[in-house]
This record gives sequence, C-alpha cells and structure tokens, in this order.
Amino acid sequence: MKLRRVGEDRLLAELLPSLPLGKEVVAGAGDDCAVVPPPRGGQLLLLKTDCVVEKIHFESSTDPVSIGWKAMMRPLSDFAAMSGIPQFALITLIVPAARSTRWVNKLYRGLQRAAARFDVSIVGGETSATRGPAAISVSVTGFVEKDRWVSRRGGKAGDDLFVTGQLGGSIHGKHLRFIPRIDESRWLTKNFPVHALMDLSDGLGADLPRLARASKLGYKIDPGSLPLSAGAEMANAVSDGEDYELLFAISPRHRKRLQKSWRKKFPKLLLTRIGNLTSNDATPGRSKHQTFLAGYVHFQ
Amino acid sequence: MKLRRVGEDRLLAELLPSLPLGKEVVAGAGDDCAVVPPPRGGQLLLLKTDCVVEKIHFESSTDPVSIGWKAMMRPLSDFAAMSGIPQFALITLIVPAARSTRWVNKLYRGLQRAAARFDVSIVGGETSATRGPAAISVSVTGFVEKDRWVSRRGGKAGDDLFVTGQLGGSIHGKHLRFIPRIDESRWLTKNFPVHALMDLSDGLGADLPRLARASKLGYKIDPGSLPLSAGAEMANAVSDGEDYELLFAISPRHRKRLQKSWRKKFPKLLLTRIGNLTSNDATPGRSKHQTFLAGYVHFQ
Repeated sequence: MKLRRVGEDRLLAELLPSLPLGKEVVAGAGDDCAVVPPPRGGQLLLLKTDCVVEKIHFESSTDPVSIGWKAMMRPLSDFAAMSGIPQFALITLIVPAARSTRWVNKLYRGLQRAAARFDVSIVGGETSATRGPAAISVSVTGFVEKDRWVSRRGGKAGDDLFVTGQLGGSIHGKHLRFIPRIDESRWLTKNFPVHALMDLSDGLGADLPRLARASKLGYKIDPGSLPLSAGAEMANAVSDGEDYELLFAISPRHRKRLQKSWRKKFPKLLLTRIGNLTSNDATPGRSKHQTFLAGYVHFQ
Repeated sequence: MKLRRVGEDRLLAELLPSLPLGKEVVAGAGDDCAVVPPPRGGQLLLLKTDCVVEKIHFESSTDPVSIGWKAMMRPLSDFAAMSGIPQFALITLIVPAARSTRWVNKLYRGLQRAAARFDVSIVGGETSATRGPAAISVSVTGFVEKDRWVSRRGGKAGDDLFVTGQLGGSIHGKHLRFIPRIDESRWLTKNFPVHALMDLSDGLGADLPRLARASKLGYKIDPGSLPLSAGAEMANAVSDGEDYELLFAISPRHRKRLQKSWRKKFPKLLLTRIGNLTSNDATPGRSKHQTFLAGYVHFQ
C-alpha cells in the first residue's frame, strides 16, 4: 500500500508499538516531545544529528533494512568519537507519498536493529512527504562522564596517531553494515589518556586535517603504514570516506602498553599507528601538513 | 556562489561563528557531538525533532529567512505543548548543490533569529546535498520540571477545552512568522492544574481527536464558539492546520479565575472555551466524538 493512502496517524500507529523502549523512558513517541530522564551528576549531555539521503548516501535500490541500519549507525559513530553512550533517538522520515508502507516498515526494522545493538530507545519521530528523493534524519542524545569526553582539539605535538580497522572501499558494502566503535572507544578512554579522538566518516584525507586543525597542529603520515581494506589502494583509504573507524592521538609513552592490551582485548580488529601530530607554524589558517589526496567533500 | 563550489567545511566555517551560543555550552558545532550540561535534579529532559520540506511546508520562492524561522519555531511549539523550556538545537540541512550560499546564509539568519527569541543555542548541525527539494530538520533538547510537564493523556471527562489565539488561514502568512506559545504555556502550568495540553499543528479537526484519544475520552465542541482568524471560515479553523496555538483541558472549576487572569496577563491574545471532554464508550478504537471535518493529514 502507498503511504498516501495510509496517512501519518495510521503509519505511526503501526510502527510505534514495536519500537525498542527502555523502561526509563517517561513518554516516548506519541506525545508532543519525548520525555526522558536526564544524565546523572558528573555526566554531560551529548547531542548529535545526522542524515542519509537517497541517491547521495544510498541507492534507490538499496535494501531499506540496510538504509535504516546506516541511518542509525552514522550518528552513533559520532558517540564513539566522543567516547559517549547513546541513549535516545528521534527519527525524521522524509518520504515520497508514492513509497510503499512495506519500504517504510523495512526501513524501521533496520533502524530498530541498529538501535537495539547499543540499547538505544527510539522515543519519537516525525514524518513528512516530499516531491523528491527520500531522506532519513536521526537525532541521538546520550551522555559521557565529565572526565571521559575527548574532543578533536586536545592533540599534542609528538602524539602518535592511530586508526582502528581498515580503510577504503566502504562503498562496496561496509557502509551499510558497519558497527560504530563505541565499545572500543569506551575501553580506550577507560584505560588510556587519549588526547584527541574522532571517527572517520569523510575519509582520512578530509578528517585528519580537521583533527590537526582543531588541535592547532600539523601531521606527518607514513603512507605505507595505512591499513588498507581488501582490494583498496592508498587513494581509497585516503578519499573514499565512510570508514566509520576511530582516529586518535595519544602520547607515544603509552604506545607499547596500548598495542599489547588492544591485541588482547580486540584480537579481531587492527590498531595501526599511521604517523604523528607535529608542531605547526603559527600562521593562522595554514597548517604545515602534508598535501593529502582530498577526502569526500560534501556538495562537490 | 553555488554550494557545490564551496564544500561543507567552508560553508560551516562561515556559518558557525555567528551562531548564538549560551556560555553553558561545553562544545558546540565543530566537534563530533555537541556537549552541553544536562538538566538539573527535579527536571526531565525533553527531546523533539521536526522538519520542513520544500514544496510541502514552503514554496521555492519563499524568503529563506522565513523558512529558517518556521523550521526552528515548529519544534519549539512542541516545547510549548509540554510546557517545557527549549535550550539546544541541532540543524540538518539537506540542500541541492546548485543552491546559492546566499540562500543558505539567509536561511541560517532565520534559524538564528528564531532561536535567539527563546534563548536557544544552535550547537551543531549537518549538511547534505540532495538531487531533490530542500529539507531542513531541526532537533531541540530542553527540560521541564517533573511536576510541570503536561501530556495529551491526562484529560478528564467534563474538562473544559480551551484554545489560544485564532484558528484557520495560517497559510496566508502566519505559518512563516508565528511565535510558539511557550510563555503562555509556562504561565498556565505555573498557575493552573492543566490536565492535558498540546499545540495545534495539523488543525483542530486532526489534533483534538488525538488529545481525546490519548485521554481515552470523547469531546463535544460548540462550532459557533471557534475563534476564527480574519477571513477564515469554520472549515479553515478545523482543517487548515499550522495554527501553532495551544489546546488544553482543565477542570471547569478553574474557569472563572483562568479567564480573568488570562485577560490581565495576555490582553492581546484570545483565550476561548470551545467545548468539553466527554466520557467515552469503552469500545477500544471507537471514540464517540463528533464527526469533525478532517485536519491536515500527512501524505494525503
């Protein structure tokens, strides 16, 4: 059945009862706002929104379950980047009226599966028709302990730069089924003083300069060290984007212990030292970093 | 200049410094998540997301400042509906690459003006290209005191039903410049035991049945009592939608005091008793309410 024959009330009535809802939720979907308990003392509130757009982030022919998975996991990857715990999600669905309710139901199945993987409650949402491609926007709130959050800004000259996993070629499938590195990130900040941390969404070539710029530093990368995905070349690792791996800076004095305990804790996931943060010349806006192949740049 | 020639980094670098940012914000736009202080003890966290879509909620020719205003004020109207205080907003911009940066700058001016009207900080956002119409999604978090939040569910049989302002004809301009009834709603719950409260976004004909259904009650309306906007007829007041006025249920024992103190506090804004909540027959899914002309139903 087409959405235009169903209407928002019936569509939501069908979808909402099956949403995963933690018992701490005071009021979920169906009221004007969602009402949830705030983070506790000693914790900060984290907010993130992200979206996926048809023909930009997914093909029209992509399985809607995978689209839902990706739409939820993208903002959760930003929680990994802050070493935070995601808790509550709101979904905005912008969908052509001619789309089938079956498509929307499958999309929600993907959103739910992804949310459930990290105990996230879907507490509300909004739907709108559109005369163009579909878009799904997901907003997530959660928390991080005051002494655990890591920004991009804290890198120090001489810090080792590490990446998790393998880079490049995400478009061949990983971008639809990746698992945000939340467990890894939480383990890192529990056990090591990480100076700067982010997730790789636009490609190392775009994201590393952002981390360096935020830390007011340059960087030096050993291109030969980059952990390439099967079939990927260096250009892919630098520019493809959508790796959803972690990039972080940490003092070299922790290098040995980090590498050893990582192998023990996450034996199936690579951790690779790819280079260092370097001191910058003081000219504002000009970081003395290597010229990198460009990462994915939106609108270009 | 077209967006595609600018790219996300430069666009955000241009927009972000001018964002209104409360000094309580720990990390705003530019990091992976926004980091903000959580609500205090005795308060609950409120979450809302909403969107406006080109050719659905605004015309392509509409002044982008007005589009931005509307995009921000829509979710803030849901805070009025919960008697909550909005604090932090995240913006998702889905815009064709051929759109001008001037258009985006004006849109942001509208978003900022609306946010500043209620001391809301814009703490982050996301941009994406699209091959279709533009869409702007705004997510807002805030708080409400545990003993002040009002859902749609608390209506009691016999309650008076009140609406603020005038209904109908919003499409002729009000929908682009309305001011959410947050001050009015906060005053109401501070001074009166309101049983059920919501904002009118889809038209009284769609929204009142939602409040009645949530309260498991029926309703009786005096059609002659409906406060019509200039030029509007009853059908407009029931079905046009986008009134962004408050609808609430309160025991008739407070009627006189409410009407008197309202006139004193808000002399320029009508408060109209339009009818009552009535007991329902116990058949699930069948409320014995009047047949109303339908409100705006999404996708139809």
